[in-house]
Amino acid sequence: MDSGKTHHHHPQMYYYTYGPHAPALRVSPGDTLVTTTVDALNIDETGREIPRQCRQTSPDTSFKEFNPLTGPYYVEGTEPGDVLVVHIRQILLTRDFVNGGAAFDGGGLAWGISAGLSLGPRTPTPESKAYSWRIDRDQGFGNLELPDSRVGRVKIPLQPHFGCIGVAPAWGQFISSITPAQNGGNMDCVETAAGTTVYLPVFVRGAYLFVGDVHAAQGDGELCGGGLDITAEVTLELDRIPAKRIEWPRMENEEWLMVAASARPLMDAFRLGQVELIRWLEQDYGYDPLDALHLITQVGTTRVGNVVDPQFTVVAKFPKRYLPEGESPSHP
Amino acid sequence: MDSGKTHHHHPQMYYYTYGPHAPALRVSPGDTLVTTTVDALNIDETGREIPRQCRQTSPDTSFKEFNPLTGPYYVEGTEPGDVLVVHIRQILLTRDFVNGGAAFDGGGLAWGISAGLSLGPRTPTPESKAYSWRIDRDQGFGNLELPDSRVGRVKIPLQPHFGCIGVAPAWGQFISSITPAQNGGNMDCVETAAGTTVYLPVFVRGAYLFVGDVHAAQGDGELCGGGLDITAEVTLELDRIPAKRIEWPRMENEEWLMVAASARPLMDAFRLGQVELIRWLEQDYGYDPLDALHLITQVGTTRVGNVVDPQFTVVAKFPKRYLPEGESPSHP
Amino acid sequence: MDSGKTHHHHPQMYYYTYGPHAPALRVSPGDTLVTTTVDALNIDETGREIPRQCRQTSPDTSFKEFNPLTGPYYVEGTEPGDVLVVHIRQILLTRDFVNGGAAFDGGGLAWGISAGLSLGPRTPTPESKAYSWRIDRDQGFGNLELPDSRVGRVKIPLQPHFGCIGVAPAWGQFISSITPAQNGGNMDCVETAAGTTVYLPVFVRGAYLFVGDVHAAQGDGELCGGGLDITAEVTLELDRIPAKRIEWPRMENEEWLMVAASARPLMDAFRLGQVELIRWLEQDYGYDPLDALHLITQVGTTRVGNVVDPQFTVVAKFPKRYLPEGESPSHP
Amino acid sequence: MDSGKTHHHHPQMYYYTYGPHAPALRVSPGDTLVTTTVDALNIDETGREIPRQCRQTSPDTSFKEFNPLTGPYYVEGTEPGDVLVVHIRQILLTRDFVNGGAAFDGGGLAWGISAGLSLGPRTPTPESKAYSWRIDRDQGFGNLELPDSRVGRVKIPLQPHFGCIGVAPAWGQFISSITPAQNGGNMDCVETAAGTTVYLPVFVRGAYLFVGDVHAAQGDGELCGGGLDITAEVTLELDRIPAKRIEWPRMENEEWLMVAASARPLMDAFRLGQVELIRWLEQDYGYDPLDALHLITQVGTTRVGNVVDPQFTVVAKFPKRYLPEGESPSHP
Repeated sequence: MDSGKTHHHHPQMYYYTYGPHAPALRVSPGDTLVTTTVDALNIDETGREIPRQCRQTSPDTSFKEFNPLTGPYYVEGTEPGDVLVVHIRQILLTRDFVNGGAAFDGGGLAWGISAGLSLGPRTPTPESKAYSWRIDRDQGFGNLELPDSRVGRVKIPLQPHFGCIGVAPAWGQFISSITPAQNGGNMDCVETAAGTTVYLPVFVRGAYLFVGDVHAAQGDGELCGGGLDITAEVTLELDRIPAKRIEWPRMENEEWLMVAASARPLMDAFRLGQVELIRWLEQDYGYDPLDALHLITQVGTTRVGNVVDPQFTVVAKFPKRYLPEGESPSHP
Repeated sequence: MDSGKTHHHHPQMYYYTYGPHAPALRVSPGDTLVTTTVDALNIDETGREIPRQCRQTSPDTSFKEFNPLTGPYYVEGTEPGDVLVVHIRQILLTRDFVNGGAAFDGGGLAWGISAGLSLGPRTPTPESKAYSWRIDRDQGFGNLELPDSRVGRVKIPLQPHFGCIGVAPAWGQFISSITPAQNGGNMDCVETAAGTTVYLPVFVRGAYLFVGDVHAAQGDGELCGGGLDITAEVTLELDRIPAKRIEWPRMENEEWLMVAASARPLMDAFRLGQVELIRWLEQDYGYDPLDALHLITQVGTTRVGNVVDPQFTVVAKFPKRYLPEGESPSHP
Repeated sequence: MDSGKTHHHHPQMYYYTYGPHAPALRVSPGDTLVTTTVDALNIDETGREIPRQCRQTSPDTSFKEFNPLTGPYYVEGTEPGDVLVVHIRQILLTRDFVNGGAAFDGGGLAWGISAGLSLGPRTPTPESKAYSWRIDRDQGFGNLELPDSRVGRVKIPLQPHFGCIGVAPAWGQFISSITPAQNGGNMDCVETAAGTTVYLPVFVRGAYLFVGDVHAAQGDGELCGGGLDITAEVTLELDRIPAKRIEWPRMENEEWLMVAASARPLMDAFRLGQVELIRWLEQDYGYDPLDALHLITQVGTTRVGNVVDPQFTVVAKFPKRYLPEGESPSHP
Repeated sequence: MDSGKTHHHHPQMYYYTYGPHAPALRVSPGDTLVTTTVDALNIDETGREIPRQCRQTSPDTSFKEFNPLTGPYYVEGTEPGDVLVVHIRQILLTRDFVNGGAAFDGGGLAWGISAGLSLGPRTPTPESKAYSWRIDRDQGFGNLELPDSRVGRVKIPLQPHFGCIGVAPAWGQFISSITPAQNGGNMDCVETAAGTTVYLPVFVRGAYLFVGDVHAAQGDGELCGGGLDITAEVTLELDRIPAKRIEWPRMENEEWLMVAASARPLMDAFRLGQVELIRWLEQDYGYDPLDALHLITQVGTTRVGNVVDPQFTVVAKFPKRYLPEGESPSHP
């Protein structure tokens, strides 16, 4: 697949749903794609909001869009039932600032609760604060002043990753860019970083790949609803596995086989991820499924991606050192 | 609104997503619409499957569509932020048979658990059975033989209602016809019956009303995943309330004010419905919201519509006899 | 069983856990028990708090006890694996006032969320109000003034029932009187009213029956955390079914077979209740379980008892008119 | 606290509930306790089942007890409202074998679903297998043959930890040894290992500390319901913090501040853990709570302890490198 073409693409239009919109570019398995993303709040690398005419606006003009998506990329030759392979080669941050926030929702913390629970004018305004991070791209750190806290300031390591990576969903749906699902989407997982290969189920001819919402860093669960939202130039190498059935996005890197399942309640996402992981070990690595379940019980790791999106994302992980010897990183 | 036109429409095309598809008909507030629906399994009143060219087929041809929708009806003059009012005047069943089923999912009952949990070839085939109901439309009963059970046969009263009634959703999404959400959709509630007025939030200019999936009867929760699926001729009178904010479908009939909220987990649907009901009592009937909460605690009723769809539906109900005296059935 | 003795018992001690405490009285199957209960807030029929020495105080003196329980009644001859049958003959209210309240928890409604979510001193004090109901015992109505609401006042029908009815739990546990579980307990269900027979699984020799927390009325879910808490004189007739396995409290009255399952999340309570109901129809009434599932899907009713206790309670209900003909109200 | 006495205790009786049973030993803050535990299935270090007379048997003799507990240890001077400090100094495994299993529950994986969902005789027997691990205590590895899988055998690193560590609960309850709660209990967390200090809220004078259910290793979630169950000799150093309010067990080691919250649904455990962690950072380390929330969003880690017990356990973790400089590992 290294013999493919390299496409340099700069988006002219951003989308807020996953679906078979007019392709921004047609690429082939084996090709490499270099493109850019703006941040989750529609701000570009210079700090300017992307203009209205560059957004696929919703018919509902009252809506404030989040998570503008770069794409869609039509991958020639992909058919429903195939797997789209996305090798994430590089996520290069393209600015030095991040603006984020935190808010308590009155009597509790709002995360994990569907929007719409508050009682309007009678609800006390939730306390909230804004935070300005300085991103040191050379050293790979984020710096934040915290004058209200005894610690004063913190410096954290960066781990750039996609908040959003996905394809057109099943059944003719167009799914919001804030929602993760079987087609990937807004999974908000640190695992979708450079060095990871993402395997996405193809539901529509051409796959229609979208990316966006790069974070410079994020903790487990994305509690406040936002990681360190930033802009990036990203390099992806694409491939195709024909006629391979996967139910959920699968990922692998040097160390892990991983499944990212998205559902509500949180427990369903947990279950669905484990079952898909067991299936993977059975299909590709010759594990008896009961053996796989017993072994995952002892050595498996599970990370919570987000508990704030319309579906929550859980990543079930299996250490590759327990694969049969000599079985190299491979297809899902 | 009684001065409107009456439109007789026979669908030529059925849809499997809610969204701004090409309108089947343009109608105005005050108009009456008489149309027909086929059953959830794509079978018409003669027992024939509707032909492929009459379905808006998904790009994913492997998909078996359910819940074909009649519509969309573009309602002139409706804007995002309005409420679409649908008076359900009549649901007339148009055939005498219903084919349904029941299935246990191996070690438990599958309902309420996201699809995809089973382990493929290792899963024992779930036990399942098919059931053929005879519908006595004159007397309003459904009859079923149960030779494997001591009771032998049962005869149940019919209560025809829509499984699906909804409008185009927010944010440019096209949502599957199996999913209930803020735009209504596959709520599977017995309350959407003749005599009920449904209030739907408008997200897209023209509203884009769809109906379908009529059931001759259904119990709470739709445990097996299907009520008594049947075909119907339905009569709807439409109206518009300008610039009125509602978060979830509201309904009322002679006896009840009702809110149908759809979410996962079930508890979120429960909460969201109660909060919207309290809001309604405050906005339109002068209730102090704490008074409303305290009174609902003592006299409110909550019915579970479905626990089998991608989102679960809960109906929060307030008896109209506790509204301020002289306040007649009215707008939401 | 009508030939049994009638015991008149006036409690000297109230308990706050279900478990094999020293019996207040020993009774036999067939006997009738007439006793009294105080309200959930430890207030008796005269408006006085029950004295400290009449409460089985917790070693944790910082704890404010709720739901004082009358009992335990040791039922001679009952063994683990039996069913204790409690015919509720009468619940006679013994005072004319109820003090209740309502509270919003800052940014949302707290129900269904575990205690402990608020952020202490930073949490705005939730809005709350107190309500004084006047109970008209002769006419069977509760009356409430609502000066802050346009309705002004409401009058609601009473339906006296037990908030708490249960036995000693399994495994040597002593479970709090605010928790419902397989042993019954704080189910907060309107179904535990006069005319209902309750079937409780026996886990400990002697069963150890407790009752308490009578409500004059309550809506679905007990949203605020309290129905119309009141005192009562109650008449119970007891019986025993030997060696009959039931998983959850079962109930029946003239119209319904019912199962009350308590769990978190709400969906688990829902599922557990339906499965036990299907089992009951199979064991005692000759239903094929798939037939039972299919029929419950069409005619079953499900009521939510509470969504505010440490476990939520759901009542799955089957109409007795669909039992085999001639099968009278009977044992579980 | 190093000046305390060292107690060597060998249990004569094992308990299956947390509560104020007759103390096995009275110790003082500052003392060190060396004792032993048997495995979760009542098997001792020689492979023999502990005799019936050494178990506090339930009145329900049909019950198969799990998780026999060593204790209780009465800690002199501790009062409700205090914190019991348990420094885990050593967990020394005392045998070389572990017997475990795995089972699929028919149509799905049973974990996370309350027991009692299956349909009795009609449920296909779940597939299950047994596994015999050889424990290499010198090298710190567990070895398992997997003849049915292509991998053949696996060798995993050991990380001995308590499945059970807890005190008598609030409100006079006696809670089962299979249940985790605010008093600790069956949390099944790898974090309760040597090198960790556990802070437990005291609800009953004397605290009544219990330990048991040591695992040689366990993955996230304990999916099958059992880690590598084993026997151990354990060394604990005890201390007391007077009049300090904590809601959930807190832990710390060299790297992390941690809170272990247990609830259902899983999302509630997640939320409760994060809120307690924010509180801790505010109370003891001078964090503004919004700053703490924002920072946890970017650098916090959350691990799922178990999703198989009556309550699920989630561990919210904060890296100690973001504490104010010079603030050493300290009290909760």
